[in-house]
Amino acid sequence: MSKPPIRVGFIGLNPNNKWAATAHIPALRSLEEDFEIIGVANRTLESAQRTAQELNLKSAFASPAELIASPDVDLVVVTVKVPHHFELVSAALKAGKHVYCEWPLGNGLDEARELAAMARETKSVAVIGTQGQTAAGVEELKALIADGYVGQVLSTSIIASGGNWAGQTTADSYYLSDGANGASMQSIALGHTLVAIQHALGNFDAVDATFVRNFDTVEISDTAEVLPKDVPDQVMVQGRLANSAAISIHFRGGVSRGTNFLWEINGTEGDIQVTGDMGYPQIVKLSITGARLDDRVLAPLECKRNRSPAENLSPAADAVAEIYKRAAADIRNGTRTAPTFDNGVALHELINHIEVSAAAKQKGVVLSFD
Amino acid sequence: MSKPPIRVGFIGLNPNNKWAATAHIPALRSLEEDFEIIGVANRTLESAQRTAQELNLKSAFASPAELIASPDVDLVVVTVKVPHHFELVSAALKAGKHVYCEWPLGNGLDEARELAAMARETKSVAVIGTQGQTAAGVEELKALIADGYVGQVLSTSIIASGGNWAGQTTADSYYLSDGANGASMQSIALGHTLVAIQHALGNFDAVDATFVRNFDTVEISDTAEVLPKDVPDQVMVQGRLANSAAISIHFRGGVSRGTNFLWEINGTEGDIQVTGDMGYPQIVKLSITGARLDDRVLAPLECKRNRSPAENLSPAADAVAEIYKRAAADIRNGTRTAPTFDNGVALHELINHIEVSAAAKQKGVVLSFD
Repeated sequence: MSKPPIRVGFIGLNPNNKWAATAHIPALRSLEEDFEIIGVANRTLESAQRTAQELNLKSAFASPAELIASPDVDLVVVTVKVPHHFELVSAALKAGKHVYCEWPLGNGLDEARELAAMARETKSVAVIGTQGQTAAGVEELKALIADGYVGQVLSTSIIASGGNWAGQTTADSYYLSDGANGASMQSIALGHTLVAIQHALGNFDAVDATFVRNFDTVEISDTAEVLPKDVPDQVMVQGRLANSAAISIHFRGGVSRGTNFLWEINGTEGDIQVTGDMGYPQIVKLSITGARLDDRVLAPLECKRNRSPAENLSPAADAVAEIYKRAAADIRNGTRTAPTFDNGVALHELINHIEVSAAAKQKGVVLSFD
Repeated sequence: MSKPPIRVGFIGLNPNNKWAATAHIPALRSLEEDFEIIGVANRTLESAQRTAQELNLKSAFASPAELIASPDVDLVVVTVKVPHHFELVSAALKAGKHVYCEWPLGNGLDEARELAAMARETKSVAVIGTQGQTAAGVEELKALIADGYVGQVLSTSIIASGGNWAGQTTADSYYLSDGANGASMQSIALGHTLVAIQHALGNFDAVDATFVRNFDTVEISDTAEVLPKDVPDQVMVQGRLANSAAISIHFRGGVSRGTNFLWEINGTEGDIQVTGDMGYPQIVKLSITGARLDDRVLAPLECKRNRSPAENLSPAADAVAEIYKRAAADIRNGTRTAPTFDNGVALHELINHIEVSAAAKQKGVVLSFD
């Protein structure tokens, strides 16, 4: 006899909000035995009603507080902008609900630590949406490395594009340009990628970072405004992994007409290249090629140990579905297989270390050769 | 009426020493109006005689000292291993000769400074072989950037292979693995590349580096010995150029079956990719592709302002020939158009800064997420 589905309430769900609607909804609908999407709370009741109707959900709640208080909701999914995470997640935890919160967990490390402490206290299943460790391509890469495809990993290098954080944005995305919102390129684009790196290659040992800001203002394309921007548009990280491999990462704001995601892994016996359309290994389709020993040319790699991605789901929705699968097991069995708020805190700590390192950089003397 | 050719004597020339024989000799022979290769001095007279015969040169000198003292030699070319540069170059300068010395100039910054001071005193034309600024592909790139192809440069990223400095080498190349010889990956492979970067994109502002050594020993393939190695096999540099663009460089020892040279330049209006078979932009054939404005796909770029490389010369020999052309003008006209020892000192200073920065890195706390 199957157990009753876990009843999910969304805070911040809008068919126009591409992420929640295109990744979370298909993910949950692919897991019908485990989950039922009950309803939604948005900023206004009207918006919630519109969403509920469009997505065919039972309930439109008048406010997040009403959703959180509802006895019909077991799991509160928070897919709003980062500055609202703390208030909504802590309210949900205090109400005894399980929570799935999008990454970043908090607006900065302190908020994240406080939320994780709350989750430990309430014993809720508190899941952080870091799908860098559940994306099918990353799992595939991890299995290849674990199987010894490249031998001992000597180095890894990533050149990636963040999509946002360059000289232009939209009114809706402008909050990404304001550091006060905790939604910078290093916390979002790099953060998700750090998770993927650690999942496939192991933990970081030491890292050092340099940030560059070429744009101090940003053009808002839909309003023609020019607004201040105080977050970096170039994020460079270099260091060592715990296995002593060298790591170099360069995230650039905006989009390149050339490389948007290149992740090379070099080992004693082989080399792997992972490529994709953007620096979000948890979202885009990853192509994996490799060569080892006497191979001279990279060829597509298929990894037999791979978890097959669900058919009909995009890579992004598939990675989210994998998190929900684990969350369902955790809620039912008291396990902690899905990424937890404590994992989220560790990632915040790593990003904080990167930010502190970048901030400590002194402007050097001019170094010239010509 | 043409002037008499400048008479060149080589210290360290051997048909089996691929670099001098395959780059310098064809370069000079393509400039017959300007140069005559008089002869050679090697470690033994026999070796010099063998080389002179094979390459059809007039003179085999019994020793470097004899070559330097010969009234038939105007320009002494030093193409021996780095530890011998100081003694040979300073002897040539003291004898009043012009000098072409291969990069690195000195075994470390202090030697380079002393040699440059000597050259200033003797007023010799003292040329340093940093062809990163004369390679046709780099000139082409420089012209594209200067023409505004990418608009304002926002960032540049390089992933490259050093060829040497991994876990295996040959007896003849083992000296590269011993830091005491001043021939590390950061001084040779990275050094030449830094010159190319500065030539195309402008000076460095601030840089920071991390070195990793995965191999503490090196297998000597032709003798089956295992010998110590104390130089890094992973060299990472990140920082800003003087124009504020972000720069990230990752040189890996050995050869990758994937990326061996990828140099991407991203600007406000376009993107350029430079690729080649190895991280030596002054030697390998560089392919340049780009896209700008509404272009969606990178396409080969031809730069109209480009100096056409000499026909029949390899890219490496062509870049060396360009240095010799300038050296001829400098010797005849008292100009300083070829890279000088002072330029060499500036490059040594930049590399020294990189080495100091890397050495200052503390082993960090273990940073984990999983």
